Amino acid sequence: MLQILHCLTCLLHHCDDCIFSTWCQNSLRVRKPHLLPFNIYSVVLPLTQKREQSCPATNTSMLNVHLVPHTHDDVGWLKTVDQYYYGDRNNIQHAGVQYILDSVIDQLQQDPARRFIYVETAFFYRWWKQQSQNTRRIVTQLVNEGRLEFINGGWCMSDEATTHYSAVIDQMTLGLQFLNETFGECGRPRVAWHIDPFGHAREHASIFAQMGYDGFFFGRLDYQDKARRMKTKEMEMLWRASESLTLPLADLFTGVLPNGYNPPEGFCWDQSCNDAPIRDDPDLEDYNVDEIVQRFLNAAFYKTNHIIMTMGSDFQYENANLWYKNMDKLIKYVNALQAKGSKVNVLYSTPSCYLQELNLANLTWPLKTDDFFPYADDAHDFWTGYFTSRPALKLYERLSNSRLQTCNQLEVLSGPKSTSGPFGEGDSDTMKRAMGVAQHHDAVSGTEKQHVAYDYARRLATGWAHCEVLVRNSLAVLSGSESPRVFCENLNISVCPLTESSQKFSMNVYNPLGRTVSWPVRLPVNGSLYSVTDTNGKAVNSQVGNYVCMSFKLICNIYDMKSSSLLPLLSVRWFHFSINNKSVLMYVFKFLKVTFDDTTGLLSSLTNLETNQTIRLTQNFYWYNASAGNNKESRQPSGAYIFRPNSSDPFVINKTAEIQIVTVSSTVQEVTQWFSPWVSQVVRLYEGHSELELEWTVGPVPIADGLGKEVITRLDTDIESSDYFYTDSNGREVLERRKDYRPTWDLKQTEPIAGNYYPINSRAYIKDDKHQLTVVTDRSQGASSIYNGSLEIMLHRRLLYDDFRGVGEPLSEPGEFFDGLVARGRLLLTLTPPNMAADVHRPLAQGMVLQPLLSFQDGTPLANTKLEFTGLQDALPPAVHLLTLSQWDKDSVLIRLEHQYQAEESKTHSQPVTVNLQKLFSTLEVLGASEMSLGANQWKEDMNRLQWNTAKASKPLLLSAKDPSPWEVTLNPMEIRTFLLQVRQL
Amino acid sequence: MLQILHCLTCLLHHCDDCIFSTWCQNSLRVRKPHLLPFNIYSVVLPLTQKREQSCPATNTSMLNVHLVPHTHDDVGWLKTVDQYYYGDRNNIQHAGVQYILDSVIDQLQQDPARRFIYVETAFFYRWWKQQSQNTRRIVTQLVNEGRLEFINGGWCMSDEATTHYSAVIDQMTLGLQFLNETFGECGRPRVAWHIDPFGHAREHASIFAQMGYDGFFFGRLDYQDKARRMKTKEMEMLWRASESLTLPLADLFTGVLPNGYNPPEGFCWDQSCNDAPIRDDPDLEDYNVDEIVQRFLNAAFYKTNHIIMTMGSDFQYENANLWYKNMDKLIKYVNALQAKGSKVNVLYSTPSCYLQELNLANLTWPLKTDDFFPYADDAHDFWTGYFTSRPALKLYERLSNSRLQTCNQLEVLSGPKSTSGPFGEGDSDTMKRAMGVAQHHDAVSGTEKQHVAYDYARRLATGWAHCEVLVRNSLAVLSGSESPRVFCENLNISVCPLTESSQKFSMNVYNPLGRTVSWPVRLPVNGSLYSVTDTNGKAVNSQVGNYVCMSFKLICNIYDMKSSSLLPLLSVRWFHFSINNKSVLMYVFKFLKVTFDDTTGLLSSLTNLETNQTIRLTQNFYWYNASAGNNKESRQPSGAYIFRPNSSDPFVINKTAEIQIVTVSSTVQEVTQWFSPWVSQVVRLYEGHSELELEWTVGPVPIADGLGKEVITRLDTDIESSDYFYTDSNGREVLERRKDYRPTWDLKQTEPIAGNYYPINSRAYIKDDKHQLTVVTDRSQGASSIYNGSLEIMLHRRLLYDDFRGVGEPLSEPGEFFDGLVARGRLLLTLTPPNMAADVHRPLAQGMVLQPLLSFQDGTPLANTKLEFTGLQDALPPAVHLLTLSQWDKDSVLIRLEHQYQAEESKTHSQPVTVNLQKLFSTLEVLGASEMSLGANQWKEDMNRLQWNTAKASKPLLLSAKDPSPWEVTLNPMEIRTFLLQVRQL
Repeated sequence: MLQILHCLTCLLHHCDDCIFSTWCQNSLRVRKPHLLPFNIYSVVLPLTQKREQSCPATNTSMLNVHLVPHTHDDVGWLKTVDQYYYGDRNNIQHAGVQYILDSVIDQLQQDPARRFIYVETAFFYRWWKQQSQNTRRIVTQLVNEGRLEFINGGWCMSDEATTHYSAVIDQMTLGLQFLNETFGECGRPRVAWHIDPFGHAREHASIFAQMGYDGFFFGRLDYQDKARRMKTKEMEMLWRASESLTLPLADLFTGVLPNGYNPPEGFCWDQSCNDAPIRDDPDLEDYNVDEIVQRFLNAAFYKTNHIIMTMGSDFQYENANLWYKNMDKLIKYVNALQAKGSKVNVLYSTPSCYLQELNLANLTWPLKTDDFFPYADDAHDFWTGYFTSRPALKLYERLSNSRLQTCNQLEVLSGPKSTSGPFGEGDSDTMKRAMGVAQHHDAVSGTEKQHVAYDYARRLATGWAHCEVLVRNSLAVLSGSESPRVFCENLNISVCPLTESSQKFSMNVYNPLGRTVSWPVRLPVNGSLYSVTDTNGKAVNSQVGNYVCMSFKLICNIYDMKSSSLLPLLSVRWFHFSINNKSVLMYVFKFLKVTFDDTTGLLSSLTNLETNQTIRLTQNFYWYNASAGNNKESRQPSGAYIFRPNSSDPFVINKTAEIQIVTVSSTVQEVTQWFSPWVSQVVRLYEGHSELELEWTVGPVPIADGLGKEVITRLDTDIESSDYFYTDSNGREVLERRKDYRPTWDLKQTEPIAGNYYPINSRAYIKDDKHQLTVVTDRSQGASSIYNGSLEIMLHRRLLYDDFRGVGEPLSEPGEFFDGLVARGRLLLTLTPPNMAADVHRPLAQGMVLQPLLSFQDGTPLANTKLEFTGLQDALPPAVHLLTLSQWDKDSVLIRLEHQYQAEESKTHSQPVTVNLQKLFSTLEVLGASEMSLGANQWKEDMNRLQWNTAKASKPLLLSAKDPSPWEVTLNPMEIRTFLLQVRQL
Repeated sequence: MLQILHCLTCLLHHCDDCIFSTWCQNSLRVRKPHLLPFNIYSVVLPLTQKREQSCPATNTSMLNVHLVPHTHDDVGWLKTVDQYYYGDRNNIQHAGVQYILDSVIDQLQQDPARRFIYVETAFFYRWWKQQSQNTRRIVTQLVNEGRLEFINGGWCMSDEATTHYSAVIDQMTLGLQFLNETFGECGRPRVAWHIDPFGHAREHASIFAQMGYDGFFFGRLDYQDKARRMKTKEMEMLWRASESLTLPLADLFTGVLPNGYNPPEGFCWDQSCNDAPIRDDPDLEDYNVDEIVQRFLNAAFYKTNHIIMTMGSDFQYENANLWYKNMDKLIKYVNALQAKGSKVNVLYSTPSCYLQELNLANLTWPLKTDDFFPYADDAHDFWTGYFTSRPALKLYERLSNSRLQTCNQLEVLSGPKSTSGPFGEGDSDTMKRAMGVAQHHDAVSGTEKQHVAYDYARRLATGWAHCEVLVRNSLAVLSGSESPRVFCENLNISVCPLTESSQKFSMNVYNPLGRTVSWPVRLPVNGSLYSVTDTNGKAVNSQVGNYVCMSFKLICNIYDMKSSSLLPLLSVRWFHFSINNKSVLMYVFKFLKVTFDDTTGLLSSLTNLETNQTIRLTQNFYWYNASAGNNKESRQPSGAYIFRPNSSDPFVINKTAEIQIVTVSSTVQEVTQWFSPWVSQVVRLYEGHSELELEWTVGPVPIADGLGKEVITRLDTDIESSDYFYTDSNGREVLERRKDYRPTWDLKQTEPIAGNYYPINSRAYIKDDKHQLTVVTDRSQGASSIYNGSLEIMLHRRLLYDDFRGVGEPLSEPGEFFDGLVARGRLLLTLTPPNMAADVHRPLAQGMVLQPLLSFQDGTPLANTKLEFTGLQDALPPAVHLLTLSQWDKDSVLIRLEHQYQAEESKTHSQPVTVNLQKLFSTLEVLGASEMSLGANQWKEDMNRLQWNTAKASKPLLLSAKDPSPWEVTLNPMEIRTFLLQVRQL
């Protein structure tokens, strides 16, 4: 008996008949004035000054040097986020954020001229909750006066290469919501500040623009690009971050900071620095005021009469007095020279005050339309390894996002009992914070120390444990049954004690997507005498018994085999199975045909039976030999950050694959390919699906030969892709890539492989006039196209050396049972004509991101159990994605609706589409709705961003369709609209 | 023409006829109430609390744990004192005292329960002068409330092994005076605090007692002694620090701190520590309150219901928030357990509050009468090397003291024009501060880094440059002549451009002793046709021309010889001089006869012709081969601190000496002995002198053989000294030493040489019933007696390894011209019957400490020049030493009169002696006098020290003689009396 709760997403069969129902209410759509008392804006701040008024005075006839005191507080890296907060394990790195905030607040009070910016709300929030009322009052006053300014303000400073836009928007919202509730308008960050991430995604810029930021500053970009921009004075620009969104929605003023995020050389006065303090007591030795002042003046080499100087760095200001005392002296002595004719004016400032001055200058700025990947800080130092580093953490983070969205949705749909119900106290906040932290640029990026990676995973697990209670409560509410449920966490390795032992069990499936999906489920069971039925008792097309179990047991065999393979690695030791059949194999389904080469056992062709197109497709696994840092061009080894193969030619794992299991049934067809004891793959086709699934298993990567390995799979086709390929940006818009080329400068390519790698978060493709081969992936990875017609994706990495970027460890992840981590993942391949590709890969990728949640109950559900529930009145239109549905406060929910197609990419879907907000939910009455900025910290109608001029002629405005009525909201291609809905449970 | 200013101390002749004249005034002696407005006590502090009232409440039914927040701020060590103050060169060591005081003052304000102690006035004074009036007001309030308490309070925390009591008293006075003037009574330190010095001198304890301290805490003592005291609960005791002074004048309660001066293990919360902070947010990972509290309770193992915990260490509290925030939590959570029955009460406290509780306990304490030398922290780790380390710095410090006393005296004697006169602005303060800093336990001790040693020397030179102006002005005032004067700094290497070029010049001699001395002077001159006359034009018995010059030139030859000796060191390369005469040599003078062995060229006997006693005396030079830290007992090498020979048998430099120059004249007889290219000696007898002078020259110590060397000279005699020898304590009282023995515990000797070394500051001797051989030295050194009848003194050290005590450098001093430092010094030997020895060595040693100051003028003095001036009305009695004569403020001077004999050591002088204060000065009218504590920060009559009981029966009180009249003050043996005199220039 299967209990289908939200939508029956199917057990090993295609379930077109399972769709969302619709729900709506006819109450009027009410805008903000009618929406009080939403607690946003509920903090009343009578002393609030406008930012313009709170900025320090500058001198128009002088060069104004804006000193920006700041600290860069990684939300985990060498230490865990909690260790950083408390200052624990200072033997690893001296850093204690609690003390930084203590110290800065203390120092700010000592002189009203002093300013400070704070960035990471994950830390600020912890600190705030431990403060006395008096301290809170003082801090609020400092914020109101602009002396303490929040910048960026997300929960963390997210990675840009390996994050998915869904989680990025969530983590920004989490931080901004805290600031808004705590400080109101004065706490709203005006400037995005990604000073450390290792390359910059266009989608991030688009998100920041849509969140209402006036500008964006970062520190890292390709060294060639930087040199050029320094020369042509293009360090500051206007970034047009979307090819779809209406101008200037995704335009973002962007500045590259002059010294990364560090102070000018010789001016670092933190306790962690060794620069000479200003010694201004003439009675003591080494009086150095004159020398320091002169050195400072020599550093002022900018074109405008405003320059920004970041005065701070990693975890600085733990003892803020050192910084401020010396900066006070610097300002005093430099400005004292004005009386002698100096034209330099030094002042404490903030990025938003600096930005305001740039805006007032009313200049014309260069335009940027591509992105800032890949990042290289020297000729052989491409930061393209972290696109793939820690593949298991990257997958777990992605799955956790799916779980969090499910948790959020169920909290909304089932009301207060979800957080306090029959299974105890549950919450989504813990998971939100864990996901917020996981977006950090040393978290999902894979560039943290191993113990910190474990901590991130532990946090996600804890978050899910809290959500699990919420989900149990919610399912109890929605089903009317409080029978215990279990979630089988280890289905991917075919472990689920309940299903393996129970004679009779039922399964819940919750589909967090706003439309029907087909989703294969495999369960380990004991025996073959199971019958599978749906909620109506109707038999479900399924394959039960040895087969299902076998498919998992064999994967287990792979493990077994490896655990006993103590023979030298890289030697070949094959296990031959009698059922092996190495003849030409063809799989013909409704949609796809796949052929294998009978000599090599590799894939040989792919055919789309619907469009009747075939390509040659060979796929194999290779490894790049990681540089050990000992060659003459450079001492740079591959590491957690850096990808640097010591040759452009990867080693093939095996020229041939042993095909070991061939399964053919009415629901799924599988071929297992064995390439080596540590590389295998299951090739799968599902009934009714148009994608080819490649489930790869890589690891433990052998290193006993003393060679670090970066494992890729490469798809070689006869598609005439030339040097072009395409990668997504944070899972949304797709950017064109071209081998050995950058759109904005004349690239001198120095790393023919690493220098052509780009991050993919959800997909990559190659195409020619006729064919587009699209790969949808289950996590963020690095990808490239080195040869005409080929596409390669890096799957796993195991290295022997640290790469000198601070982490201090070689990236060599331990496994649970073996000496190295085994990673497994899926690539979904689709072959289409180019103009039909998006119609397939957009929903396919969203389905990969938001996966159904399975839960199990022993025995038959109780008699009164409600077996089906649908939260939506009807499935959303194909172009609309339900990005966010989350409880905001007692009476309101936050919803984000997204148009998931780019302009012009789909003949049918790249069009405006309208949704009626009142007709969304089946069990919630929508009493009112107000549109907000993407970050949900400002009413849409209050957004008033700074305007910037650009030299290049803008392309014609994409006119956006208007809303037909207050309740009916229209989404244009790639648009995300954010609403706060006042709701009542029906 | 010689101009004799103060007292003609003679040029190469005995000058009994040159004595002080007397001066006196008949004004009444006035005590304090009549002495206002002395600015001591001039700070009016209406809110002053008594210490008893300001101490934190304790709980008598509980164990009270006194947390003492403190910082230990070396006045120079790895960095210079200024670098430490500013936080410069943090790459060497992170330390910035300015920030420590900023931070502590800030943190103290945040909670009235918090307390802090501050120790080093050299730093506090610098900080104070940079503070605003508002900060000063806040600090004063904190001091008045006992929240900030000054402890120890000297300019530095002096070394105890290598300092002279004169300079120690001065540096303490300098610090205490500043505190008194700034904070009045509330700023008066009650507790002496020598937590770091490497062994403890009894004279220091005596000084502290006489300065009015209630108690003394230190951190380092012999590890065997500590283990025993821990076991027998004798960590706290009463130290009877003088065998001469009236009880309880030199009794000092003394406590050994439990953890050195560090916090208990695991409780170091400074930014420089890596201990886990208290993590008390249950929402974060690793909540550790319970574990920390339990660990803290386990550490409480003391016998009384009060224990002291030093919460701090070197340069800690630069970010005081880290400490206080965690200690606040510790106190909160430990004391919270009292509600559950815990009997532990933790509180912020200070050493004086802790001491007060101990005193209230009214216990009987063990008695200590010897000292705490030598200090060993493990079996092979005797800190006896620093007794000799940096011999040149040790000499320069001693000479600088002499110059400072001269500077001080002349400032008093010549009035305000001395500091602002014809030669510009001069002062004694710079030299006082330089000497204050030089007393630090990493300064004159020789345990600082090389660059810091240079800095100390530079400071002394700068101090002298300021004094030199003062002295020039003063001499101009006193002589009535403003003719320019030069001071020949390099007379010791026979360089003085004026005397070498001038046809006619005059010499001033200022004698800072309160009585006549005979003092040899040697000047390099050009030619032999000089006549020397005194102020009356009378010819002076002198030896002019080649002889005088030759004696220097030959020493220069030694240098020349060495600079060309590039042949392998330790090889023998002799320069033979034709005048060499290696027959038996005998020198018969009025007082002494010395014989040399005609085979070896070494000394063979010494005869006192007055007492008609002769001893066999052989003297030679040896070197101990320094451990390289590679033997099996221990990896401890010799270093700046540690002396560890790798064998008990030193290598002899040479069994024979080449006698190269024999000079016989009516004023001086000299023999130069050559032992090797880097060791030589001049043996000298002066007409009219009863001491034998051995002027040794050692260096550059060769290390090309890869062996560190610790060079000694050993005197071997037929005196039956058995295992006994005698060494002075800081230049005053003499302690009996016994080989392989400690008076207070059963010594297990593990280092037969290093474990028997003791510091000498002015003298050492061996004796039997008939003979006492006393050696007076010119600087602090290490000395021992390893064999019956022998006395050895370590002269110089050059080592190849750091000794792991933090300095991080091997002690290998560079020379100015050669690859290693050449050191030269003098030992003065006297042979007497034991009961007559003090009569000789006491004045001899004081003459070595306070040397005449020579200055020179070209040509003949102008006609009206006053050629003689005597500041005293008459010579002081032989037992009385003028220890201090220094300007205090505009109208008053500080004077210290010292009885320089111990009880019972001299038949004639170990008696009370009386001085009339009004009859001291020739040119000053003494209007009033008030007696003060030794530190000059309290009126003697106000001194009211805590009283302590001791178990052992006290020896009968030495009754002190009383003053016969208010103006006539009587000094008992070893007594120092300190007066503030109100004076008027006549």
